[in-house]
Amino acid sequence: MNKIEHIGIAVKNLETSNELFTKLFGKKHYKVEEVKSEGVSTSFFLIGENKIELLEATNPESAIAKFIEKRGEGLHHIAFDVTDIHAEIKRLKEEGFVFTRDEPFIGADNKLVIFLHPKSTNGVLIELCQEKK
Amino acid sequence: MNKIEHIGIAVKNLETSNELFTKLFGKKHYKVEEVKSEGVSTSFFLIGENKIELLEATNPESAIAKFIEKRGEGLHHIAFDVTDIHAEIKRLKEEGFVFTRDEPFIGADNKLVIFLHPKSTNGVLIELCQEKK
Repeated sequence: MNKIEHIGIAVKNLETSNELFTKLFGKKHYKVEEVKSEGVSTSFFLIGENKIELLEATNPESAIAKFIEKRGEGLHHIAFDVTDIHAEIKRLKEEGFVFTRDEPFIGADNKLVIFLHPKSTNGVLIELCQEKK
Repeated sequence: MNKIEHIGIAVKNLETSNELFTKLFGKKHYKVEEVKSEGVSTSFFLIGENKIELLEATNPESAIAKFIEKRGEGLHHIAFDVTDIHAEIKRLKEEGFVFTRDEPFIGADNKLVIFLHPKSTNGVLIELCQEKK
């Protein structure tokens, strides 16, 4: 794993949270993006070499809607940048880690992504993401 | 805020979690530290320019013990590196943010730290930390 690519934060309302985090960081988000397949609208802030991704559910069946219903707004996941996602999935499966899907898919930022199940990672939802070639 | 200094993860048992995260990251933690004033034992992993801090409660009254009792293991806080913590506290108070204490104190890694109350930050516990001069 090369670095933390981003930290995902579940929010109820992207517009009010964009204002809040703009005040917090002293700078604005640099983009917004809807990921229809995941049922979320997202915005991104850049802090050092990392991004902060705010996620609002656009679909009541989405993972973010369910997370907020169960736990409220807050820290949702950490995403790690990897060079070869298939090699990393293979390595981690051999170490006993469990993934939420069998194959990586296209997430926000047009990256190839996959999530480890938090049951195998101390309750932390971890995303691996690779720049698409 | 210069960068994400570290991400704090609450764990039940530091030893077993050190093993788990060593497998996940493919490398070992570089130090362990007890912070008696906060009732925690910590370990640190380095990923890119960021640290991952695992926190185990050493005291049933500590914030980490209460967090795990309420929410289980998982993502606990994000810490941002700041150059002048007093100036940043002043700026954020003027923006309406609320802190859990009035003054910064000495945290892990011998840094001057303070936490924003998650009620004012979308449910995210945020730490500011400054290298001690």
